[in-house]
Amino acid sequence: MIEAAARALITHGPGVSLDAVAREAGVSKGGLLHHFRTKQALLVGLIDEWFGHYDVMVESLLEPEDTPGRWTRAHIRATFTTDELWSHPSVVTALLGVPELQQRLDVAAARWRQQIDSDGLHQQRADLISRALDGVTLADLLWRGQETPEEREHTRDLLLKLTEQTGPLV
Amino acid sequence: MIEAAARALITHGPGVSLDAVAREAGVSKGGLLHHFRTKQALLVGLIDEWFGHYDVMVESLLEPEDTPGRWTRAHIRATFTTDELWSHPSVVTALLGVPELQQRLDVAAARWRQQIDSDGLHQQRADLISRALDGVTLADLLWRGQETPEEREHTRDLLLKLTEQTGPLV
Repeated sequence: MIEAAARALITHGPGVSLDAVAREAGVSKGGLLHHFRTKQALLVGLIDEWFGHYDVMVESLLEPEDTPGRWTRAHIRATFTTDELWSHPSVVTALLGVPELQQRLDVAAARWRQQIDSDGLHQQRADLISRALDGVTLADLLWRGQETPEEREHTRDLLLKLTEQTGPLV
Repeated sequence: MIEAAARALITHGPGVSLDAVAREAGVSKGGLLHHFRTKQALLVGLIDEWFGHYDVMVESLLEPEDTPGRWTRAHIRATFTTDELWSHPSVVTALLGVPELQQRLDVAAARWRQQIDSDGLHQQRADLISRALDGVTLADLLWRGQETPEEREHTRDLLLKLTEQTGPLV
């Protein structure tokens, strides 16, 4: 039902009605309202699914061997993965307008930061990689389309390489 | 008048009326409307002033000697400078809701990126510093208060140090 809501957002834009979401999900409006009493509740559900989706992706990208930088490399790969549904501008714009996003982001960002900080990398590397990943997220959220796929790949590869050594940077 | 608008935003929140802005600026409503016909036009004016303010700050932070990394160091220092008026959550929140922000950000981000890229630093350093500065901006915009002043200073000093050498990082 949540994925149907995302698809409906893409088709109808941020002003999408609960009726359109119910149609896209193939359920009755009553069935939809049973799960999400308001559009606001549905958008919060979308945000939770968005973060859940990201965590599943990170898990799936973890290398089998437990070496320094393992979590960080999975985060880097996940941050640079774009998804037709969850990276769509209509979905992103709708979620950016939800007041609950701030609190969910705070929790997730603190958790990611803590994972990167306890991954066996030098603190300078952990700090710089965390900040750079935030920067990639900002670019995805706010200045989409400013960079070529090659520039993106370049940054991803640089960040991955930074996890392969564990000493200080400066 | 623009600074008065920012102060009025801080006092009255994002829903501030043009009447309240006129009062704060000490001008008549007619005088205000002469410059900004709508609240939307006033917010776009605020955005332009915001970017102008940032550029003036960068200029003021440039070192006299023209050495590699000079522009980048001024950008780093400016990004980490918080301003009572322009960094206030009420002002930031109001400006984040303005559709014209995207286009202004695109132009500014492309210009900053180009300045950092032509500053005599190795491309890896320029890329990483640009991304990290975007990350600091994202943190300021979206997850304020997640970090201590010491963590902030730490990141700033690390980024400054990265500009002091010009070789590759990995």
